[in-house]
Amino acid sequence: MGEADERPDRADAPGQESAPRTFRLVLEYDGRGFEGWQAQAGARAARTVQGVLGEALASIGCPAAKIQAAGRTDAGVHAEGQVVSVVLARALEPKSLLRALNARLPGDVAVLEACEVPPGWHATDAARAKLYRYRIWNGAVRSPLRAARFAFIPEPLDLEAMRAAAPAFVGTHDFSALRAAGSSARTSVRTLRSIALTGASGGEIALDVHGEGFLRHMVRNLAGTLVEVGRGRFAPADAARILASRDRGQAGPTAPAHGLTLVRVWDGFGD
Amino acid sequence: MGEADERPDRADAPGQESAPRTFRLVLEYDGRGFEGWQAQAGARAARTVQGVLGEALASIGCPAAKIQAAGRTDAGVHAEGQVVSVVLARALEPKSLLRALNARLPGDVAVLEACEVPPGWHATDAARAKLYRYRIWNGAVRSPLRAARFAFIPEPLDLEAMRAAAPAFVGTHDFSALRAAGSSARTSVRTLRSIALTGASGGEIALDVHGEGFLRHMVRNLAGTLVEVGRGRFAPADAARILASRDRGQAGPTAPAHGLTLVRVWDGFGD
Repeated sequence: MGEADERPDRADAPGQESAPRTFRLVLEYDGRGFEGWQAQAGARAARTVQGVLGEALASIGCPAAKIQAAGRTDAGVHAEGQVVSVVLARALEPKSLLRALNARLPGDVAVLEACEVPPGWHATDAARAKLYRYRIWNGAVRSPLRAARFAFIPEPLDLEAMRAAAPAFVGTHDFSALRAAGSSARTSVRTLRSIALTGASGGEIALDVHGEGFLRHMVRNLAGTLVEVGRGRFAPADAARILASRDRGQAGPTAPAHGLTLVRVWDGFGD
Repeated sequence: MGEADERPDRADAPGQESAPRTFRLVLEYDGRGFEGWQAQAGARAARTVQGVLGEALASIGCPAAKIQAAGRTDAGVHAEGQVVSVVLARALEPKSLLRALNARLPGDVAVLEACEVPPGWHATDAARAKLYRYRIWNGAVRSPLRAARFAFIPEPLDLEAMRAAAPAFVGTHDFSALRAAGSSARTSVRTLRSIALTGASGGEIALDVHGEGFLRHMVRNLAGTLVEVGRGRFAPADAARILASRDRGQAGPTAPAHGLTLVRVWDGFGD
């Protein structure tokens, strides 16, 4: 996969400035200022996490041949533990790379960890599972201090009903009912390992979705659907019917992006 | 105190549109967008919480004669439970007032509670105690998602040393050593009821300061001083000496405003 694979002998040789090296980075970012991880086709001028990281790498003399992420987060979606692979033209101490990048990156994105990985390692392919958290502020009044990271739903939600509905989505299913319109994935079959709902009606609520793969908008559509259960518009038993329908029109609306955070990626490092 | 006191008979009469009414409001705000609770003299054009609240009251047809806060938070300081008294020219359902204000107030400030209080009630005078929380992100790398509310200190802090130093500041003392230059308070004597430090070195740390009264910058100067203890620049035993010196130059630097939040006010309502 990629040019690093084609010359492993040179990549292993120390001091070879021209040998490409692959690094694994863990990123945290506040999604509000970004048009997502990468620009959609035809939107090249957008500010993206991939673009900002590429500029920072170029500014420290390490233009990256490839920058790939485990989860291609959408506009407004945050990350506490996004994993990225970058192929750089030269060898570099991971600690120096981390420090240099954090000095150049803007305040809304930071590199939490950096290590060198074998040539050909690719963050997207290496991701075996991911944890997304959807945060809801269920207070009666909007919360200025939570506005950046929580979706605001003032109507008291029935958490027990939401918890009763959630298991229908766990396991391997065709998630067409929760798939964004225009999504280009080859198949809609994905596997969710668990869905956990914590917090309390009237307060902070967190929906943790642990899965092996996700369709575009899948977590936000799942959150929107469970919120409709919490509001009483859907019964818990409707969840299985909605999923089986494979019809996006049967599920709830797409919950807002700013409530969603990519919390963690499982890719064999520090699992 | 104030015009409401001068005509209690009219204030009590229902339907008297011209009788002033006093309301107690609880506010939450993100301090980043404000030049503090109220403008400093000579800075009338500043965006302040008091000013924004006054504009919102005027926009709903309730221009306020007086808007007073329990804690006059500085520029950049947040509030989860600021208490405010407002004197309005007419009677109003507190729930309607809350809803109308939240519809008009900008996204970085909200009214969490509203109730009518006896004429003459004054949020500043009624406040018997306040809880301020100072938040520190002690990770090795800056945290974009914590940047709004945590001061970033990358050097690992010795929490046990900080905990050993804190009790020296609890009780009734002359806090001149922690007083902002140019502070206009008549006396520097204040009473702190407790100081609690929670969290962990290398992670999130919260410094909770519960006191009956505070000088300008007092919590931020206390945080700055305890951080110097955590860094090993001061020994825990230095705390008593610094306080007794009454010399601002002996204490640590003023910690940044964005780490500070006014969490709660005790004024007899819902205590």
